[in-house]
Amino acid sequence: MEGELKPMDAEQLREYGHKMVDFIADYYKNIENFPVLSQVQPGYLRKLLPETAPAHSETLQDVLEGWQACNLDLVPFDPDIQTKILPGVTHWQSPDYFAYFPSNSSVAGFLGEMLSAGINMVGFSWITSPAATELEMIVLDWLAKALKLPDEFLSTGQGGGVIQGTASEAVLVVLLAARDKVLRRVGKDAIGKLVVYCSDQTHSALQKACQIGGIHPENFRMLKAVSCRDYALSPDALSEAVSHDLATGLIPFFFCATIGTTSSTAVDPLPALGKITKSNSMWFHVDAAYAGSACICPEFRHYIDGVEEADSFNMNAHKWFLTNFDCSALWVKDRSALIQSLSTNPEFLKNKASQGNLVVDYKDWQIPLGRRFRSLKLWMVLRLYGLEKLQAYVRNHIELARRFEEHIAQDQRFEIVTPRKFSLVCFRLRPPQSNEDYANKLNHDLLDAVNSTGKLFISHTVLSNRYILRLAVGAPLTEERHILAAWKVFQDEAATLLSKC
Amino acid sequence: MEGELKPMDAEQLREYGHKMVDFIADYYKNIENFPVLSQVQPGYLRKLLPETAPAHSETLQDVLEGWQACNLDLVPFDPDIQTKILPGVTHWQSPDYFAYFPSNSSVAGFLGEMLSAGINMVGFSWITSPAATELEMIVLDWLAKALKLPDEFLSTGQGGGVIQGTASEAVLVVLLAARDKVLRRVGKDAIGKLVVYCSDQTHSALQKACQIGGIHPENFRMLKAVSCRDYALSPDALSEAVSHDLATGLIPFFFCATIGTTSSTAVDPLPALGKITKSNSMWFHVDAAYAGSACICPEFRHYIDGVEEADSFNMNAHKWFLTNFDCSALWVKDRSALIQSLSTNPEFLKNKASQGNLVVDYKDWQIPLGRRFRSLKLWMVLRLYGLEKLQAYVRNHIELARRFEEHIAQDQRFEIVTPRKFSLVCFRLRPPQSNEDYANKLNHDLLDAVNSTGKLFISHTVLSNRYILRLAVGAPLTEERHILAAWKVFQDEAATLLSKC
Repeated sequence: MEGELKPMDAEQLREYGHKMVDFIADYYKNIENFPVLSQVQPGYLRKLLPETAPAHSETLQDVLEGWQACNLDLVPFDPDIQTKILPGVTHWQSPDYFAYFPSNSSVAGFLGEMLSAGINMVGFSWITSPAATELEMIVLDWLAKALKLPDEFLSTGQGGGVIQGTASEAVLVVLLAARDKVLRRVGKDAIGKLVVYCSDQTHSALQKACQIGGIHPENFRMLKAVSCRDYALSPDALSEAVSHDLATGLIPFFFCATIGTTSSTAVDPLPALGKITKSNSMWFHVDAAYAGSACICPEFRHYIDGVEEADSFNMNAHKWFLTNFDCSALWVKDRSALIQSLSTNPEFLKNKASQGNLVVDYKDWQIPLGRRFRSLKLWMVLRLYGLEKLQAYVRNHIELARRFEEHIAQDQRFEIVTPRKFSLVCFRLRPPQSNEDYANKLNHDLLDAVNSTGKLFISHTVLSNRYILRLAVGAPLTEERHILAAWKVFQDEAATLLSKC
Repeated sequence: MEGELKPMDAEQLREYGHKMVDFIADYYKNIENFPVLSQVQPGYLRKLLPETAPAHSETLQDVLEGWQACNLDLVPFDPDIQTKILPGVTHWQSPDYFAYFPSNSSVAGFLGEMLSAGINMVGFSWITSPAATELEMIVLDWLAKALKLPDEFLSTGQGGGVIQGTASEAVLVVLLAARDKVLRRVGKDAIGKLVVYCSDQTHSALQKACQIGGIHPENFRMLKAVSCRDYALSPDALSEAVSHDLATGLIPFFFCATIGTTSSTAVDPLPALGKITKSNSMWFHVDAAYAGSACICPEFRHYIDGVEEADSFNMNAHKWFLTNFDCSALWVKDRSALIQSLSTNPEFLKNKASQGNLVVDYKDWQIPLGRRFRSLKLWMVLRLYGLEKLQAYVRNHIELARRFEEHIAQDQRFEIVTPRKFSLVCFRLRPPQSNEDYANKLNHDLLDAVNSTGKLFISHTVLSNRYILRLAVGAPLTEERHILAAWKVFQDEAATLLSKC
């Protein structure tokens, strides 16, 4: 690239952009050929790259090198991407990816990301791109209606939706709103008395939010969720803990329930829990980061019955709703609580529309100031696919998970650990002897063995001191054949391991 | 789109992706034809869109409608994008965009975004894509070396770099690290005694970080920066404030200096300020969000002399460094302070590499858990453009700003308010009478008049109670002709306004 730098030349964008589209399309065409879990060793990349940034730009030639106009095989866009970067990628979009929870990519989501990156505006205030703010309000109203959330969560009243980066940021901002609301009443020196409640199955994001917000660690109550309730929190446990804290002069102010916990997709009973939070004037947050997507289907909507009692509700469209990462939808009933906690109003951002209270400025609903035009991708997903096909999409994954569960159940060497609700199967290899330590080691070894094949990637958890394997169906390309192939790998690796026992 | 949903079909991605590339390339070709500042009224979009999400997917035909294989004129990708969304966009990439600070897009940055969205992995831990973590470490080491940051900021020692979304998140995480470090020493009940210092020119992000972190508002010291020091903070002011607080039993623990303040690109004197923070064991953060990019040029590097004393340093590659939003580079000398404040270690994320302390898990360096593969775009920018051309890029904008400043200086109706250091010109219309209230109104009216033309977009600030116009050069497509055209608009609108006086 000789001569003057023209960093945004439309024709170069066109030329290179087309090549990148082909590279990415070819990547998806060939995605099953990669080991799902990257098999590189720590520090691999430093050995492959220079120690300093190049002083001179690389020529067009350098970047084009290795390109062939061929759609059948994966061809390198940039030799370095092909040879140095991709080996270090764990392929979340592989149909054989079953770890953690899914993180969906889709054509619509990808197009939305492209458009957002192309426009590249920074939507902190309405004026910086009215369409970004208004489309976000509208699309989150659409999604709220699809989930049959109560009207108080719509932007047309006192509430509204906002796209956060992740569920961690969602729970943090509502925790801060709740904290500041109660501190305005009791005085800020009482922060050491504020108590937060959740089950011990709640995502660690809440604990981190408490650390950030200055809630004392000893006032963070992780109440035990037990196996006999499928790891859902008992309302009695919450009620007792709150009463006990009140009796000792502490101030219960925040409770987080989960619909679809990370370890085992447990569902906390919202109606009963909501009564307790309501009668104690506590903020009630519902985290449905993963399972929220399923609740667009009438047959699964009952899992969030009771959400009427919640102050805030969150689901991650980037998990299982075909919207590329990151896109975490948060709704609140009282947006003024968020704004009171998170607004700043420096002179250099003042403008007529904001000063006149005519508009929403999403900077006051989130941690960062700047924000991307993230609603575009969610809008593209909803329009290109439509709710009925999105429902069918989620149902299909749940059906695939059910079939995998059936295979497990029919093999005496394995056991299902908790009943499957959505698309996550929690299972383990039964130990030949009924020795729990040994069972844990065996399942740990099985996880390593399976992931080391590169044929699939799963993750684990621990429930009631038992090491559990988690297989989460949810990648957009996963079909029944991938489930069958995965089951075959488990059988083979289990046989090998058990033969050594 | 009839039949089964195939949300990630490689050939559909190819077909649609190519069309989106053409749409975006055409957008840039025609970007000068849009009003820079969107001229829509609040609520415009709700009237144009349906009240609920579509139940049925839209057909390929719907989306393709309106397409023509024509590169010369802007053609709609999706009629709605063209007719409903774009009118509500404020065009940050327009060569006539001079508001706030720039937010650069580039071909390289755009390609990096595409690739990141294509791979769509979630890089919370090393294992979830080793390349994402390792490339980020390497590329931030490259950038640290280009800025000649002290070696303690490199990942090869006890420090390292991390990409945050924005400078707001950068200052928040270091504030939390500093808070928790001091609270571990003095006890968490002392949070009400912790004091934070900055100049009154510091970005509002620090105030917000204090609100989030539970620092008492009365312990947030915005020290007055005065006109005669070009709005740089006086070390004496900091020294006196710290001494006073120490005398009253408070605990000074955090100071933020700015290189290139938002209002007027003032530069706080790091060496003298750093001595004060050092002798008081305070965390010293340097915010160079905007001006950091200029410091890759030897002739501007002196502005960050004294960064050796800092504990953390931040610059936004997404502002003036051709890396699409968001990409805020943060370096710390003591990464363990960040990790101690922000780490969680739930069972479901445990893995051999993390447990063995063999790797960096960036989830413990930031607020959210999940994170995009953001280093790709910065890597693409550094490789495709190279440091020498990036230096030339920044110099060119500074030269263009200098020329605009010259025009202002030669017109008796206007005055320069503070000496220009980088690519921001702060100026105003002199009032015919020397009446400050009237001058403020006049300049407010001039801002409105200029922005209402749609020909350019600038923003404002207030310095020493004077309403000031800010023209920030920095969009990738801006050339001298755009500066001349902007100056012409100012002259014309000023003439109209003054004729009414």
